[in-house]
Amino acid sequence: MKHTLSVLVENKPGVLTRVAGLFARRGFNIESLVVGQSENPNMSRMTITIDAAEHPIDQVTKQLHKLINVVKIRDLDPESMVARELALVRLSAEDATKRAEAMQLAELFKAQVVDVDRKSLVLEITTTPDQLASFTKLLQPLGIVELVRTGTVAIGRGRG
Amino acid sequence: MKHTLSVLVENKPGVLTRVAGLFARRGFNIESLVVGQSENPNMSRMTITIDAAEHPIDQVTKQLHKLINVVKIRDLDPESMVARELALVRLSAEDATKRAEAMQLAELFKAQVVDVDRKSLVLEITTTPDQLASFTKLLQPLGIVELVRTGTVAIGRGRG
Repeated sequence: MKHTLSVLVENKPGVLTRVAGLFARRGFNIESLVVGQSENPNMSRMTITIDAAEHPIDQVTKQLHKLINVVKIRDLDPESMVARELALVRLSAEDATKRAEAMQLAELFKAQVVDVDRKSLVLEITTTPDQLASFTKLLQPLGIVELVRTGTVAIGRGRG
Repeated sequence: MKHTLSVLVENKPGVLTRVAGLFARRGFNIESLVVGQSENPNMSRMTITIDAAEHPIDQVTKQLHKLINVVKIRDLDPESMVARELALVRLSAEDATKRAEAMQLAELFKAQVVDVDRKSLVLEITTTPDQLASFTKLLQPLGIVELVRTGTVAIGRGRG
């Protein structure tokens, strides 16, 4: 089963290493790990997506709580969260037919063209993890030269 | 001086720990570190933004090259790259005036409203690092409850 953990950590050297190391040592399959600034300038927020089919997630969250500089951990409910990922994709643009097909897909998926030259074009897309998987799959035969993805960030939906 | 490194690594356990550890040990100030899937299913691409004012960048790229599973490193030219960051921002929506102001800013910065309830609203934005800094700064007095950022991803512009 897939879990999305939102982990608030203090901005101290080595936090990322300790958190990543904990998962690595325990053989967890990290699908993505994102770390970025949070609402508090002294804290960063990590979004960790893991496939915890074989390992109980409780065990890992307990271990995470014990780590220095880990402040708060939430296991987000997949039914009640907003999950997004950003990707930049460079496509070969030398074949006119493929280029036209890529432009059509970009429009369909609301991707933006952010760079063009004679040989390639770069698309920017922000969407759900599932949609991004479909988009990159459809672009594959059109010639993906370079792909940069952020990994998934997620936030719980309100219950107000 | 700020550097943006695009690092292609093999998908092997412990790569992230080793790369993050290298920077931590050398006392580098990592502004952001992003790791996500690349165009090759066996490789991930890291985008690392560092402030290398005091340390020569060459020293670190040499050390990176020596790490196991590090395949390729590029120090992107800031004049010739596309850099983007995705953020999800939860704002307090209890004050009608502030909520209206937030909606105006969202429109100005082309942010999307992705969740609303009686107490809060969640905005999604993908933009340049500079624009994101302005956006969050302007939202600050309106009540940021939660902020999740991916860190910067970047791709070189073509020269075709």
